[in-house]
Amino acid sequence: AGPMRESRRAPSVREIMQRNITCISETEEIKTAAKKLMKGETNHLPVINKEGRLVGIVTTYDISKAVVKMGIENTVSSIMSRKVITTSPGEAVDIAAMKLEKHNISALPVIDGEGKLIGLLSAIDLGKLFGKRWL
Amino acid sequence: AGPMRESRRAPSVREIMQRNITCISETEEIKTAAKKLMKGETNHLPVINKEGRLVGIVTTYDISKAVVKMGIENTVSSIMSRKVITTSPGEAVDIAAMKLEKHNISALPVIDGEGKLIGLLSAIDLGKLFGKRWL
Ligand SMILES: C[S@@+](CC[C@H](N)C(=O)[O-])C[C@H]1O[C@@H](n2cnc3c(N)ncnc32)[C@H](O)[C@@H]1O
Repeated sequence: AGPMRESRRAPSVREIMQRNITCISETEEIKTAAKKLMKGETNHLPVINKEGRLVGIVTTYDISKAVVKMGIENTVSSIMSRKVITTSPGEAVDIAAMKLEKHNISALPVIDGEGKLIGLLSAIDLGKLFGKRWL
Repeated sequence: AGPMRESRRAPSVREIMQRNITCISETEEIKTAAKKLMKGETNHLPVINKEGRLVGIVTTYDISKAVVKMGIENTVSSIMSRKVITTSPGEAVDIAAMKLEKHNISALPVIDGEGKLIGLLSAIDLGKLFGKRWL
């Protein structure tokens, strides 16, 4: 517990997560998702149901897939990933970083104990923190 | 110098960059770019000319933009970013991390002294390294 150990403690997700998250419902059109991604200047659009619970995630990658595979006239539910890898506000950022690596993804929705979306943690947020460590 | 200082030295880009990079020429179609992005399971496709020099970058984000704005029947040159933020093999990773942060991007093409593409450094690569620091 002394200062040595303290200086190595990883911050928790809540300290660096983004809190203003654009999200979408699964019944919306793919083009609407693309518009929201452009407007939010983000690659990740969490998909939520009426209760605010996370049910999927759509990225610019999924939209490119629609361009190649099924056309862009479908709905969000046809292209979203349903098994979402998530994190929680109290999780240590090193655990979150390992999840990104293990699953080859670049962001994790942050959910509370009830499955509600409260933020997003991206590889860029981690990169910022990482950059600072060596300054 | 001394061990204290040594332990804080940031690694250089060449130690963690990806070397097998899928890339594309600017005269190809947007759909071909989308296919290559899917095949490489990546978000970043550097655009090179005949001499292997980097002339732009196309991401899944640019393809989503084409979906919203100009349609997907155009060529890579109509959607690529031409002012590419890059890194070099000898650059320290903390400098690279700051470039990602400053420009709000998630990867940097790595170029040699002649502008030739030799790798790619992504925020995920940085995240991996970052995760390890706190293990
Ligand atoms: C496997 S990644 C590959 C592209 C690239 N490596 C990247 O970092 O985005 C792309 C896929 O991951 C999915 N995805 C992104 N974040 C996710 C998350 N937190 N949980 C589950 N799937 C996710 C997207 O829906 C998309 O289909």
